[in-house]
Amino acid sequence: MKKVGILMGSDSDLPVVRKALDTLRSFEVPYEVHVYSAHRTPAQAQAFCAEAQGNGFGVLICAAGMAAHLAGAAAANTVLPVIGIPMASGGLGGMDALLSTVQMPSGIPVATVAVGGAVNAAILAVQMLALEDKSLAEKLIARRKADQEKVLEKNMAVEAEFNL
Amino acid sequence: MKKVGILMGSDSDLPVVRKALDTLRSFEVPYEVHVYSAHRTPAQAQAFCAEAQGNGFGVLICAAGMAAHLAGAAAANTVLPVIGIPMASGGLGGMDALLSTVQMPSGIPVATVAVGGAVNAAILAVQMLALEDKSLAEKLIARRKADQEKVLEKNMAVEAEFNL
Amino acid sequence: MKKVGILMGSDSDLPVVRKALDTLRSFEVPYEVHVYSAHRTPAQAQAFCAEAQGNGFGVLICAAGMAAHLAGAAAANTVLPVIGIPMASGGLGGMDALLSTVQMPSGIPVATVAVGGAVNAAILAVQMLALEDKSLAEKLIARRKADQEKVLEKNMAVEAEFNL
Amino acid sequence: MKKVGILMGSDSDLPVVRKALDTLRSFEVPYEVHVYSAHRTPAQAQAFCAEAQGNGFGVLICAAGMAAHLAGAAAANTVLPVIGIPMASGGLGGMDALLSTVQMPSGIPVATVAVGGAVNAAILAVQMLALEDKSLAEKLIARRKADQEKVLEKNMAVEAEFNL
Amino acid sequence: MKKVGILMGSDSDLPVVRKALDTLRSFEVPYEVHVYSAHRTPAQAQAFCAEAQGNGFGVLICAAGMAAHLAGAAAANTVLPVIGIPMASGGLGGMDALLSTVQMPSGIPVATVAVGGAVNAAILAVQMLALEDKSLAEKLIARRKADQEKVLEKNMAVEAEFNL
Amino acid sequence: MKKVGILMGSDSDLPVVRKALDTLRSFEVPYEVHVYSAHRTPAQAQAFCAEAQGNGFGVLICAAGMAAHLAGAAAANTVLPVIGIPMASGGLGGMDALLSTVQMPSGIPVATVAVGGAVNAAILAVQMLALEDKSLAEKLIARRKADQEKVLEKNMAVEAEFNL
Amino acid sequence: MKKVGILMGSDSDLPVVRKALDTLRSFEVPYEVHVYSAHRTPAQAQAFCAEAQGNGFGVLICAAGMAAHLAGAAAANTVLPVIGIPMASGGLGGMDALLSTVQMPSGIPVATVAVGGAVNAAILAVQMLALEDKSLAEKLIARRKADQEKVLEKNMAVEAEFNL
Amino acid sequence: MKKVGILMGSDSDLPVVRKALDTLRSFEVPYEVHVYSAHRTPAQAQAFCAEAQGNGFGVLICAAGMAAHLAGAAAANTVLPVIGIPMASGGLGGMDALLSTVQMPSGIPVATVAVGGAVNAAILAVQMLALEDKSLAEKLIARRKADQEKVLEKNMAVEAEFNL
Repeated sequence: MKKVGILMGSDSDLPVVRKALDTLRSFEVPYEVHVYSAHRTPAQAQAFCAEAQGNGFGVLICAAGMAAHLAGAAAANTVLPVIGIPMASGGLGGMDALLSTVQMPSGIPVATVAVGGAVNAAILAVQMLALEDKSLAEKLIARRKADQEKVLEKNMAVEAEFNL
Repeated sequence: MKKVGILMGSDSDLPVVRKALDTLRSFEVPYEVHVYSAHRTPAQAQAFCAEAQGNGFGVLICAAGMAAHLAGAAAANTVLPVIGIPMASGGLGGMDALLSTVQMPSGIPVATVAVGGAVNAAILAVQMLALEDKSLAEKLIARRKADQEKVLEKNMAVEAEFNL
Repeated sequence: MKKVGILMGSDSDLPVVRKALDTLRSFEVPYEVHVYSAHRTPAQAQAFCAEAQGNGFGVLICAAGMAAHLAGAAAANTVLPVIGIPMASGGLGGMDALLSTVQMPSGIPVATVAVGGAVNAAILAVQMLALEDKSLAEKLIARRKADQEKVLEKNMAVEAEFNL
Repeated sequence: MKKVGILMGSDSDLPVVRKALDTLRSFEVPYEVHVYSAHRTPAQAQAFCAEAQGNGFGVLICAAGMAAHLAGAAAANTVLPVIGIPMASGGLGGMDALLSTVQMPSGIPVATVAVGGAVNAAILAVQMLALEDKSLAEKLIARRKADQEKVLEKNMAVEAEFNL
Repeated sequence: MKKVGILMGSDSDLPVVRKALDTLRSFEVPYEVHVYSAHRTPAQAQAFCAEAQGNGFGVLICAAGMAAHLAGAAAANTVLPVIGIPMASGGLGGMDALLSTVQMPSGIPVATVAVGGAVNAAILAVQMLALEDKSLAEKLIARRKADQEKVLEKNMAVEAEFNL
Repeated sequence: MKKVGILMGSDSDLPVVRKALDTLRSFEVPYEVHVYSAHRTPAQAQAFCAEAQGNGFGVLICAAGMAAHLAGAAAANTVLPVIGIPMASGGLGGMDALLSTVQMPSGIPVATVAVGGAVNAAILAVQMLALEDKSLAEKLIARRKADQEKVLEKNMAVEAEFNL
Repeated sequence: MKKVGILMGSDSDLPVVRKALDTLRSFEVPYEVHVYSAHRTPAQAQAFCAEAQGNGFGVLICAAGMAAHLAGAAAANTVLPVIGIPMASGGLGGMDALLSTVQMPSGIPVATVAVGGAVNAAILAVQMLALEDKSLAEKLIARRKADQEKVLEKNMAVEAEFNL
Repeated sequence: MKKVGILMGSDSDLPVVRKALDTLRSFEVPYEVHVYSAHRTPAQAQAFCAEAQGNGFGVLICAAGMAAHLAGAAAANTVLPVIGIPMASGGLGGMDALLSTVQMPSGIPVATVAVGGAVNAAILAVQMLALEDKSLAEKLIARRKADQEKVLEKNMAVEAEFNL
């Protein structure tokens, strides 16, 4: 199976990114994680992305905050699909990272998820890999059902407590 | 090859969505386009998405404005990857559609592109389909190079006119 | 009397939604509360709303955060009035949920209250039910007077402490 | 049948408000429309709202822009449900009117619709009046179906033109 | 000397408003403070403002949060100058109260100060009263100088610690 | 009578500022208008403000766009009340000028009116001057009544056209 | 004298960037202009910046819109000062480009000017080059004086027309 | 070597500004720091800036919050390059200070860094001074490399912990 490459701009992003790793592991999808900054280590970030396709990666996930260029820089150096996680930091609530990640110019898309949306970034990567992998598609359906079950259980608890 | 399903919430989105169709056609990727509103025709939108995987679709693209629920509603009814195009309308410049599309809760991702980013939505869809399709991956690289050439040509024109 | 149906997208919304329940109880208006997610349990949410009118409901209240589609999804499946409570979460202060709830397209209104405005959602529901229920209208006037009394008491306390 | 009272803060709001009138007329719901400003004619606005219940009104709709206080002022003077239409004007795209209308304090709700959402304001008013009026409820369902038909027709046109 | 009338929409505004009272007292400017809500006690708020000029008031200061209508309602009921203090509350950081206070329509100005700017509201009121009161004007100049001295002292402390 | 000093940062502000001049003239309030930029002619702007009190001015009005510092610079150089008009320009709709004008630090207030609110700036200045001028106060009441009459006339026209 | 290198992400930025060229020419500062996109031609953009110091450049100016990464990418590849011009495009008024340009992480500054602020970008570059170039510093002072003269002339025209 | 002049509008800015001082010291760049407010001590701020060039300063750094005029006031009084640090305070997350600092009118640039970006302000100042100072340019390259090393070390730690 193709691997998911996960880049974060700073190791301070790890508490959020860790949820993406846990999610990928729950799907038994292989991944590789790196701390590469678009601004502080541009050569390493670029090299990793340029070689990603040849190195067995299928999807890249990039998490960055503020003027979040990491996902865009990745997308500029590969034709693999790139998923961007805007990270909240400071007083602007992640609006800076969201706009820096999603407002990409024509030709170089970044598949942007919610501010801090690491779990969804991982699921989106799995959805892409599942296009040609039936067992992965089945796992996605199973997880979807499990998520539904959790909501329905919470619903029953709330119904029991609040409805007469 | 798997098809791309394209939904728009209103036929007023067509001038933008048309760019996605043109882009897909340039990659010879089969597609099917529909006008289904998450709010006015929820049953049709839901049925299309729920059956999309079985009907040979690989990726869905959803374009909607204002409280743009179409991509989210699609994502809730399939485990195929769903790409959202926030459409600008009215005085808020598309900020309403952007937040309504990208800020999805954990478990149900929408791969969001820029406001009005129809070309990128199509390219992102092609990138996903190219994961298991070498010729498609080569076309992506060719297009990337062509885009580069265009920039370099413009650069030469600007250099010729403005540099001494 | 017709019932008020209250849906929340996640049981994490309960601390806010509970204020709506308390308010409805203070008016002796019957209600039923459920945890149904527009994205994780779309079928249940839809079924509840589609059958709400037949099941004796008069008004629906939907609380959701982020890309808050629950109220819109409810409104798409019933012609009962639907009240939306945008829930704050994350760094955007509820602006995402507010725009996702209020900016509905023509034909499918959602009566939106303030971010986190659960008490007002309940009062608005009571105001609707009071249109044909004199005793309920009288209770609304009584509550309005009680609210006034509280302000006037606070005013007297402030006057006593700060005016000479 | 109870009447809908429609207030606009300025006659410059008429091109938008007119859509609410047309919508109400299409449902054969009686209405009365006035130009009363919360700031320029506060006494008239207040008197109209305070007497609205006694004068046979069931719902009030208030359209105003900028620091849009009209709906809030109406709600402060009646326990009838009040619907607010934030009007766009100037460079802020209606964000000023939206926040001034929707962010009401606890106890005094305003049922806020989208910026410029006059049609939805009217439909929401009809939904409230339909709670005890079966024929009105049927008209709402008929209109919903007609709206669906329009989308499906547009869908067929788009399918015919763009699908192979 | 004319009095300053200070209205707050809720006694929860008192910790901020208290700074305005302290500032007025430091100028020996008489004031009267009340808790009157534009929405919960509109009649009292209106009566106070309509009679303010006759009752010896020269300036009104109104503090309110969210859809902050208090200053606008005051201004609609008097031709005295009205100063508005937008109060921050909830996740929107006071942007809702700022726009609701400052974006008044032509004819009914509100002199708006910064979010939470109670000290400045008081100084602005004193500046207005000082137009015809030389001793008050001198106090303003004295306070301005005292403020300058404080900055210059802090400057000396910083210079001493950080400059070589 | 004390004069109103009106500064604009650029003569491109004249079409808006002219409304303030017209309004002051309608009250027969003397004024003087200058184009002084806080950034391009800081010495002139400062000198004018520092000498304004001695030169017979009672109130200053400052109109500026973008990083609108003119009103703040004026307020830093006088203890006269300073009114700020944020001017819209470019894509940010005047939000830059609004925040640059209203968010003044403690000690140096600027009485801020709506974006482009030149008429209200003038009326606010008149309200300040009217504190000790009965005939001016009467003119304010007369204008308020005239404004009311205009609304009531428009109301009658709308009633005649749209009410049955 | 060191040259100014000017990069724009797209030749559609030329109408704005041209003002920077004109300004530099008015100071007789040599420059070189290129169209290099951070996303479409990342290698060329990077190579130019990495070699800029060696090739006789002293300052770089980068103009880009949307998720404006060009200035940040330049700054990541040189220790020369980099000036960023956020370009407005689409409905967000340049807020996306502003945040993408200015919110750079610690270590890699971008000297950001106003949205569309091409003239100021050029002047800022000249100010940097003038640090060790007396004649350039004198030209800056001369231009500042000329700008002042223009304001004072406009002031005289306005005074003549509007002051009595 | 030319000195860097650092102004802060209030000593409450010191915890952030201190990082700029530390950074300058690490480059052995001489500096002088002052607390001068654009509004409370305009004469001192202006005098310092007007004389800065003659007093051996090469660059000014100004930190201020809210309606942050300090950098603009500095830039209006010198042709030295002025760097602005917008400071976050209150509920608007620094957006007020950012727009007040960056949106300068044509002719008077402020080189704006991120909200709270004191380290980058210092590095940008060093970059300017390094234009004619080879040893300073080498230190910048050394620091850039050290920053890279830190990222690469963190990368190795993350790789070791999370990659299999």
